[in-house]
Amino acid sequence: MEIPEPQFEFYHHIPVQIRFNDVDLFGHLNNSVYVEFFDMGKLLYFKQFMGGHFEKQASVPVVATINCTFCTPTYIDDRLEVYTAVASIGEKSLVLEQRIIDSNKNVKCIATTHMVNVDAKTGRPVPVTDEWRKAISEYEHREL
Amino acid sequence: MEIPEPQFEFYHHIPVQIRFNDVDLFGHLNNSVYVEFFDMGKLLYFKQFMGGHFEKQASVPVVATINCTFCTPTYIDDRLEVYTAVASIGEKSLVLEQRIIDSNKNVKCIATTHMVNVDAKTGRPVPVTDEWRKAISEYEHREL
Amino acid sequence: MEIPEPQFEFYHHIPVQIRFNDVDLFGHLNNSVYVEFFDMGKLLYFKQFMGGHFEKQASVPVVATINCTFCTPTYIDDRLEVYTAVASIGEKSLVLEQRIIDSNKNVKCIATTHMVNVDAKTGRPVPVTDEWRKAISEYEHREL
Amino acid sequence: MEIPEPQFEFYHHIPVQIRFNDVDLFGHLNNSVYVEFFDMGKLLYFKQFMGGHFEKQASVPVVATINCTFCTPTYIDDRLEVYTAVASIGEKSLVLEQRIIDSNKNVKCIATTHMVNVDAKTGRPVPVTDEWRKAISEYEHREL
Repeated sequence: MEIPEPQFEFYHHIPVQIRFNDVDLFGHLNNSVYVEFFDMGKLLYFKQFMGGHFEKQASVPVVATINCTFCTPTYIDDRLEVYTAVASIGEKSLVLEQRIIDSNKNVKCIATTHMVNVDAKTGRPVPVTDEWRKAISEYEHREL
Repeated sequence: MEIPEPQFEFYHHIPVQIRFNDVDLFGHLNNSVYVEFFDMGKLLYFKQFMGGHFEKQASVPVVATINCTFCTPTYIDDRLEVYTAVASIGEKSLVLEQRIIDSNKNVKCIATTHMVNVDAKTGRPVPVTDEWRKAISEYEHREL
Repeated sequence: MEIPEPQFEFYHHIPVQIRFNDVDLFGHLNNSVYVEFFDMGKLLYFKQFMGGHFEKQASVPVVATINCTFCTPTYIDDRLEVYTAVASIGEKSLVLEQRIIDSNKNVKCIATTHMVNVDAKTGRPVPVTDEWRKAISEYEHREL
Repeated sequence: MEIPEPQFEFYHHIPVQIRFNDVDLFGHLNNSVYVEFFDMGKLLYFKQFMGGHFEKQASVPVVATINCTFCTPTYIDDRLEVYTAVASIGEKSLVLEQRIIDSNKNVKCIATTHMVNVDAKTGRPVPVTDEWRKAISEYEHREL
């Protein structure tokens, strides 16, 4: 499978740990576990801009769509990292690019996630704050 | 959220059971669980054409990409079903449409999955057999 | 393995659904999934006496210890039910007996769970209410 | 809760990583996740004596019973390690002691696991080999 080059540098990456029960009958990491891993990357990425507290934010980004491309199977002894970057920021939304990569630089899975920034109380879409836009732009070394 | 009308009838649907630990801190079904549910629908859909035995097939469809759209949150007491249909069949591939719907007809999540038909021994893409194409076309009431 | 006869009738049982990713490399249901199933049985058992709302109770039973005996492996096509009974009620505690049984009456797993009744706000052990003791005794057809 | 002192030194411990979806509605690590963690400790413990390959062994220890004592709840930001030791070896069985401990030395959960050594082909109990008994005794600094 042809794996597309990333369009930008990834500044955020975390190791993720595979569990015995993540692996199916065929010895492959189950698809749902990749989604758990992308979630972990996402959570830690955004916590950086939240003083560590998701639950105290006036607004939070929630997942609207996830597109996953499974590039090559993962086995129990693989050592994985999740790479996460904000690709773009809209008025009330963000697009995330993520990759799960093993210690041999094999790309296992690629995800593009559209998130909507919602008011924590009402659940309605609200603008991404200037503060966040600025902090994420600085982190990503790109104007977002 | 505007939910697109399905392009065809769904002939396959199964109830899926929510577990206490499927639900997160916010009371929402975790994203990864939708993927587990879509997997269950997929497995039972294809088992129909396999005499019940995935492990004895010469070729099997494997997931290449999943695109999920999360329409509305799911809570622990919701009663869900997974609807599954083959949307199209290519030379060596299939496209699946799936929906998770609650007992009030709310669409919770929509997934489009591209699968590649691979040789069970070599893992290389191989043509979808005429037998499968015919059986699935009959099941779906559409020429595929 | 010698399976002990239950000491009393089970009045509560629910079907539980196995997922593709519950099964490990060896085709066996993972140990942790039995615990998820026992949890589901427990939750629905107690909800009967809570008007359906765990979160509105003044006190709730929480798990202190679980002892599981794994009798025979479970495979993906097995059809399981969780049987749950309160074996005894102490001043501030309850003992639960549970069994996971397949459609051929094979006992897959047996669990004994000690629960402590805690104040929902303080987390401190508090007496089981007379109301609960009476309702559970009636349900179990035994003086508890 | 009074936490019993361990009867011996633990020479084996591994860090385990908490995932967002391991945590329930109440913010607590789900009971089943402790079992997943104990499994991970067990697997890596025994792999040391197996040249890394579970699937090539003539005999393997399988879990007969698990007794878990939940000492104090775990939250998403806790940093956990699983401690594992073989407590004793019988003719065809082993007893494992395990603890999950956070970075502040709080004991979260204690497990005692009885394992039966079974022939990998027949599934029948077979004697623990002298080779294993010797290797584990050396590792544990105790005559087993």
